[in-house]
Amino acid sequence: MVYHPSWRGLSFHDQVPNGAISPRAYLEACLERIAAREPLVQAFVTLNIEAARAAADAATTRHAAGRPLSPIDGMPIAIKDLIETADMPTQMGCAAYEGHWPRRDSAMVGALREAGAIILGKTVTTELGMSEPGPTTNPWNAAHTPGGSSSGSAAAVAAGFVPVAIGTQVAGSIIRPAAYCGNWALKPTQGGIHRGERQGTSQSTAGPHGNAPEDIWAVAREISSRLGGDPGTPGVMGPMATPAPRRPIRLAVMRTECWPRIEATAQAAFERFVRSLDVEILWPEDHPLLAALDRAVSQAMAIGTRITAFENRWAYRSLPRDKISARMRARLDASATTTADDYAALLAERAAMRAAHAAIAPLADALIAPACPGPAPLWNPKAPDAAANPRPTGDPSCNAGTSALGCPAVTLPMLAVGGLPMGVQLIGQPHQDAHMLALARWLHEAAAPVVM
Amino acid sequence: MVYHPSWRGLSFHDQVPNGAISPRAYLEACLERIAAREPLVQAFVTLNIEAARAAADAATTRHAAGRPLSPIDGMPIAIKDLIETADMPTQMGCAAYEGHWPRRDSAMVGALREAGAIILGKTVTTELGMSEPGPTTNPWNAAHTPGGSSSGSAAAVAAGFVPVAIGTQVAGSIIRPAAYCGNWALKPTQGGIHRGERQGTSQSTAGPHGNAPEDIWAVAREISSRLGGDPGTPGVMGPMATPAPRRPIRLAVMRTECWPRIEATAQAAFERFVRSLDVEILWPEDHPLLAALDRAVSQAMAIGTRITAFENRWAYRSLPRDKISARMRARLDASATTTADDYAALLAERAAMRAAHAAIAPLADALIAPACPGPAPLWNPKAPDAAANPRPTGDPSCNAGTSALGCPAVTLPMLAVGGLPMGVQLIGQPHQDAHMLALARWLHEAAAPVVM
Repeated sequence: MVYHPSWRGLSFHDQVPNGAISPRAYLEACLERIAAREPLVQAFVTLNIEAARAAADAATTRHAAGRPLSPIDGMPIAIKDLIETADMPTQMGCAAYEGHWPRRDSAMVGALREAGAIILGKTVTTELGMSEPGPTTNPWNAAHTPGGSSSGSAAAVAAGFVPVAIGTQVAGSIIRPAAYCGNWALKPTQGGIHRGERQGTSQSTAGPHGNAPEDIWAVAREISSRLGGDPGTPGVMGPMATPAPRRPIRLAVMRTECWPRIEATAQAAFERFVRSLDVEILWPEDHPLLAALDRAVSQAMAIGTRITAFENRWAYRSLPRDKISARMRARLDASATTTADDYAALLAERAAMRAAHAAIAPLADALIAPACPGPAPLWNPKAPDAAANPRPTGDPSCNAGTSALGCPAVTLPMLAVGGLPMGVQLIGQPHQDAHMLALARWLHEAAAPVVM
Repeated sequence: MVYHPSWRGLSFHDQVPNGAISPRAYLEACLERIAAREPLVQAFVTLNIEAARAAADAATTRHAAGRPLSPIDGMPIAIKDLIETADMPTQMGCAAYEGHWPRRDSAMVGALREAGAIILGKTVTTELGMSEPGPTTNPWNAAHTPGGSSSGSAAAVAAGFVPVAIGTQVAGSIIRPAAYCGNWALKPTQGGIHRGERQGTSQSTAGPHGNAPEDIWAVAREISSRLGGDPGTPGVMGPMATPAPRRPIRLAVMRTECWPRIEATAQAAFERFVRSLDVEILWPEDHPLLAALDRAVSQAMAIGTRITAFENRWAYRSLPRDKISARMRARLDASATTTADDYAALLAERAAMRAAHAAIAPLADALIAPACPGPAPLWNPKAPDAAANPRPTGDPSCNAGTSALGCPAVTLPMLAVGGLPMGVQLIGQPHQDAHMLALARWLHEAAAPVVM
């Protein structure tokens, strides 16, 4: 299918809450699309259809009685298979966790159920969220990756299997696959959505994919209004209702590590989009603080990778080595060269990046950047080895900076390149999640998409 | 046995590293004491004796070859049964986790093994580290509690079963049981020792109990020099060798919530000890900043309890209710009244406490306080219900403040009250762990203990 940014996808907020369709009927329509397209898309590891139907019936009864639990009561949601669910295994794309079933809900899953959401299934992740890719294909063209590590969550939304799916990001795993699949997504402020048992790395975040900003905001707030954020942090705050569109006065372009890697057509599409906006634009060369930020973040991929590898090393080194991929073994082995003193120095470098980001706050309402360095690349499952495919789910160079900065990023589908989607992201200061969504909604309503 | 603070207990640093005894012979002596006293003390949930012997033999070979892995190579260590071990179950004192065996090492356990330490067994904890007490008795008098929630770790050290055991603290669960059992212990700066899978609450810490400051410092640094601290924090830093004794110029007494609850004889013993020191002492009434700190921390127990209950609620609410105690069910149910907005406000109150603590930094080298409000209380296992025994493992009112402050605390055994031990604690600013240990060593060497 040739993608065009005018595509709107499956939404929930304008279907079920207003009674246009019952939760059960909405679910059945999702199941029909799954039956038709899942054999090719392969977004799910586990589906829990009978439990979902029972939950949809209960939601239908509440809606009929005029007493829904929340604006997402009856919303089918898919959960990345890194996150624990009491009623389905959590296998993390890793043979060492085959059949792993802790029989408890992650905090965010518990909050979603409390709000009436229907936990329909678990979605494909790369191995342990960072290594060997899974079988999921891009719903726009099955020869291309959907991105990763939230491969199945991104594809499930783009294929209309669910209106919202939960992904996680340490480098670029929420925003990149959303950008490749034509979804909206929110990577919240670090700690903004409670990570439950996945508190093992300091840059990881959890966030929703969807086709409509109303749906992702509702899910984020229904979680954070119950849980707060990660332990010790208040979580994504702001209005319960989706922030209204808000015109930015000035946006600043962030280039960082993406620029040396961006594809020429993708760069042209992004720059045409930015220049077309009825907004004042600052380029990095327009202000020394922006240039300083680009320099400070220029090593974000390497620094974030080393920080995360060190942090993951301890959780994963007990895993039986014959139950993890060669790619994963190589990552764990490489992490052994980082000492705790190196780690302390890497944290200090990350803190310096955050200081450079804080310094630009007065200059613009937000940073704007491509969400990926081009459309989703081809992925050849017949050449799976790491040497032939160093980044089989795509390049996170547009995302590593925002992950290291711990700041909110929203991707919105505004570009098409070569018939595939490509996202544009807005990046705010920590705790500006609601503000970023408001600006993104204005862009989406007021700006013309670019097709190249 | 009547306790006297001149008692020195089992140490490792002056036994094995200098070749006075081999790791295997040292372990066998531990096992003999366990065989003799464990039936009464009941410190262990699980012992892994054959694996310990094999590890001790390997350590003996390394020592004989002059190539020990670290200063703790061959040290038998006991691990609180909240913390995951690949070779033993992790049952958390809770029927819902009976037989639970994730088959991976917590980060700190992995680091200890890498340093050559011998993971001898898992020690009794109260239910989920916070509720129903286990069967462990105080080694000095079996009619008294050893304290909790690190009950087994405290008792195992005091009984000479192991030279070091790992405990955890959210309110008072490292320092209080150590103070009741006559141990040294370090509750590090928040995040100073990597908590592994136990990152679910924002005030929890892990720390060592021992009979000698050299042993607890070596264990803390052998862990933190490998792991850093919790993800995103550098961990306990400082010299690898135990900091040398250092005389404080000025100490400030901290009263907080302990004072209305302290027993008269315990207060007299503590004050006599403080007045006997050849150190300038500031009392809370001597400086308005100290009085302000006492006021700021006066609600630490209630605030910390509500923060922690909210954070624990999400991890534990999936547990089958017939597999948790009535005491635990009541705690979980009580947490349901706290909203995410309440939680954000509680975090702000905690931040204000920390600001009041930071403000006193220039006044003194450390704060000094009793580590418990009296010696270990009697515990009647025949009246286990919560109404009859609201605090069956003792009162954490001397510890809740330091837990909320996220600052380091060291308890050292300087007092005896009614034939039982009672600790004195030194409390520093965050990241002053090494400095606190140095001051504590000076106190231990230069000050006369008090027996009342």
